[in-house]
Amino acid sequence: MSSASDFDAVDIIRSKRDGEELSDAQIDWVIEAYARGAAAGDGRSGAIADEQMSALAMAILLNGMSRREIARWTDAMVRSGTRMDWSGVARPTADKHSTGGVGDKITLPLAPTVAACGAAVPQLSGRGLGHTGGTLDKFESISGWRASLSAAEMLAVVQEAGAVVCAATDDLAPADKRLYALRDVTGTVESIPLIASSIMSKKIAEGTGALVLDVKVGSGAFMKDAENATELARTMVQLGTDAGVRTVALLTNMQTPLGLTVGNALEVRESVEVLAGGGPEDVVELTVTLAREMLAAAGLGETDPADALKDGSAMDVWRRMVMAQGGAPDAPLPSARETHTVLAPASGVLAQLDAYRVGVAAWRLGAGRARKEDTVQAGAGVEIHAKPGAHVAGGEPLLTLHTDEPQRFERALEALEGAYEIAPSNARPDLLPLIIDRVTA
Amino acid sequence: MSSASDFDAVDIIRSKRDGEELSDAQIDWVIEAYARGAAAGDGRSGAIADEQMSALAMAILLNGMSRREIARWTDAMVRSGTRMDWSGVARPTADKHSTGGVGDKITLPLAPTVAACGAAVPQLSGRGLGHTGGTLDKFESISGWRASLSAAEMLAVVQEAGAVVCAATDDLAPADKRLYALRDVTGTVESIPLIASSIMSKKIAEGTGALVLDVKVGSGAFMKDAENATELARTMVQLGTDAGVRTVALLTNMQTPLGLTVGNALEVRESVEVLAGGGPEDVVELTVTLAREMLAAAGLGETDPADALKDGSAMDVWRRMVMAQGGAPDAPLPSARETHTVLAPASGVLAQLDAYRVGVAAWRLGAGRARKEDTVQAGAGVEIHAKPGAHVAGGEPLLTLHTDEPQRFERALEALEGAYEIAPSNARPDLLPLIIDRVTA
Repeated sequence: MSSASDFDAVDIIRSKRDGEELSDAQIDWVIEAYARGAAAGDGRSGAIADEQMSALAMAILLNGMSRREIARWTDAMVRSGTRMDWSGVARPTADKHSTGGVGDKITLPLAPTVAACGAAVPQLSGRGLGHTGGTLDKFESISGWRASLSAAEMLAVVQEAGAVVCAATDDLAPADKRLYALRDVTGTVESIPLIASSIMSKKIAEGTGALVLDVKVGSGAFMKDAENATELARTMVQLGTDAGVRTVALLTNMQTPLGLTVGNALEVRESVEVLAGGGPEDVVELTVTLAREMLAAAGLGETDPADALKDGSAMDVWRRMVMAQGGAPDAPLPSARETHTVLAPASGVLAQLDAYRVGVAAWRLGAGRARKEDTVQAGAGVEIHAKPGAHVAGGEPLLTLHTDEPQRFERALEALEGAYEIAPSNARPDLLPLIIDRVTA
Repeated sequence: MSSASDFDAVDIIRSKRDGEELSDAQIDWVIEAYARGAAAGDGRSGAIADEQMSALAMAILLNGMSRREIARWTDAMVRSGTRMDWSGVARPTADKHSTGGVGDKITLPLAPTVAACGAAVPQLSGRGLGHTGGTLDKFESISGWRASLSAAEMLAVVQEAGAVVCAATDDLAPADKRLYALRDVTGTVESIPLIASSIMSKKIAEGTGALVLDVKVGSGAFMKDAENATELARTMVQLGTDAGVRTVALLTNMQTPLGLTVGNALEVRESVEVLAGGGPEDVVELTVTLAREMLAAAGLGETDPADALKDGSAMDVWRRMVMAQGGAPDAPLPSARETHTVLAPASGVLAQLDAYRVGVAAWRLGAGRARKEDTVQAGAGVEIHAKPGAHVAGGEPLLTLHTDEPQRFERALEALEGAYEIAPSNARPDLLPLIIDRVTA
């Protein structure tokens, strides 16, 4: 047996730098030593300081990790905190994780739909950063709704409503929490082993029995091309499977925003439309497809989630889950004080509407934050009047921008330069399907 | 013109991570922002935090830097502090830098020899770390000698004695000082661009007009093979030349220790023997060869440094320079309280005596330090009774270990396992020459 004192941070960094594989014991030691510093709330007090972890992260980004190393790294991050236990809930548990996109409000209609079909959905979510939105920010535009719950409160909400969407507690994968913040400021985000282990450590620690990963591909996604997205999906499916979580991944289109709204309250409004049996076609299709995957992975494949949207049972769950977290489902949603409409410059077919540029515009209008400590505007965002493939008439509204601060329009409009393209009426733009691929263990 | 706010640490790290070249303005900004934190004495207060610089250093180590980038990086580090000015000294200035080895006491006889031949030698030196010794530690075994001088004191010593050997002041390349300490703990030492720019920024800031680099090759050196050592030498010669310093490099043998002593006071004793016209052949040869290079680069090529060793003029300078820094050249040198002799296990030819292992043994005996804040034993070290190629008789002394603490012998002897090899008497071991190569601009 090795003891902690057998290891040295510099030796481990040098090994990875020189392209060697780290042993299980080395990985356990690194994560344990780093989490110790996180517990002390001080980058310097762990046996591995932040400046050592960032050098190691850069070496991992450039030299990679083997499947064994990624699995051990993930497991060590799970063990850095507590793993939640849903055995007190009679229903099978199922969750979904999206790698993040523009207009991606799918959790809002999805969690109540899956709960209405008999699963329990314990979803720990995050906030938006950069051009992508965050599920908690969206929910917080509902008057009174609280994101922070104790473990006992989460259990109570799941038992009351069948689904809970809330922030992760501090003892859930604390090593990942510290590493995630470090990677953000050290240029070490874009590493598939580090992305996969970060996502999966949180989802494994969350304790769900089944997990569906929505891996976004395209301009508005983290992974711009299908090849990298597929590798990320395969890595995460393997990690989940190895940890005993029934895991499947879908690769889905993030070339263009999902639905017709981007922004917090705007997306809640659209989600409620879907729960009422309406809403944009792509949001409904992705909600139902992901719900089918979650239910199948939870052993409830005989139910049809499309029915739960039509018969009002998903809406009933939505109202219960919002109220269980202090929210008022019938209170009017906030709206922005100012709007600005972008008109179609010509008639024709909308050949593209770029997700990244629309996401940046919504961010600049106040829907997103530049730094973690910033607040967001509930009413800010972009309303979309035509989706790629649709015919538009010159001079008709294409986008409506919403913000409380009209001085924000100028930079939002700059972000939208080149964001859309109108082709002649007889053009048939070559568009990606909504569901691009499916990855299983 | 770009202003500081045009740059972002994460963008710069990502560029280097992705294999791009950094612009001159980006490099200037990085070093200036990092030095600002150094001035504040706080890793967090610069515009580039330590955890960002270590990620950048790892990206540089793995992806390299172009010749232009290295030159700019070096220049920016020089500009982070003050550049010393020796224009008030009538003689031409010349200095030597060794990349570090075992038993490398050459500065001690060399600086006074070159000064005796008419040059001024303003040598800023360092302390030992790990298995290599440091010139300041050696001088400090002389009673009363002071390593820390102000710029005015340095000038006074050079004018009095012709040579000064002392510690660098805090305002000499402060960005390098901070980066050097960071690299030591983040596994980012072994990068030729970072090593070359670190050495050369200090030597250029020191203000010498001529510089001879002694690049060590072999087990006891930083560079184990001639290929890397040649690349390092070429890079440094180019940097010096571009900065207006007449620079030449010799590649020299560090497979076996220099001379017959390794350790602080032991090496001073041997250096004084050389200054008195005696001493081991290899120490004399390297001293005279390096002195010739320094004098030639300083425009004093007509003088013969071998004469200065024979006629006592180098010894006169030695005594003046030691006294000018408070040292007593005639005081007895400290000696260790305990010795242990290693006997030759058989008769034959000493086929090798490994520099690295002897260096580690001396370190473990107390001659070196594990951390910067450790103290060293003045008397500790290893005396060598036979050099590779010499005939030895079984049972006769091969090495004598010196320390104040006899419990240190065990680990020192462990380091010496396999450090030497005795071949049959008729063997002709294949030994590297002392001077391996010469690199000029």
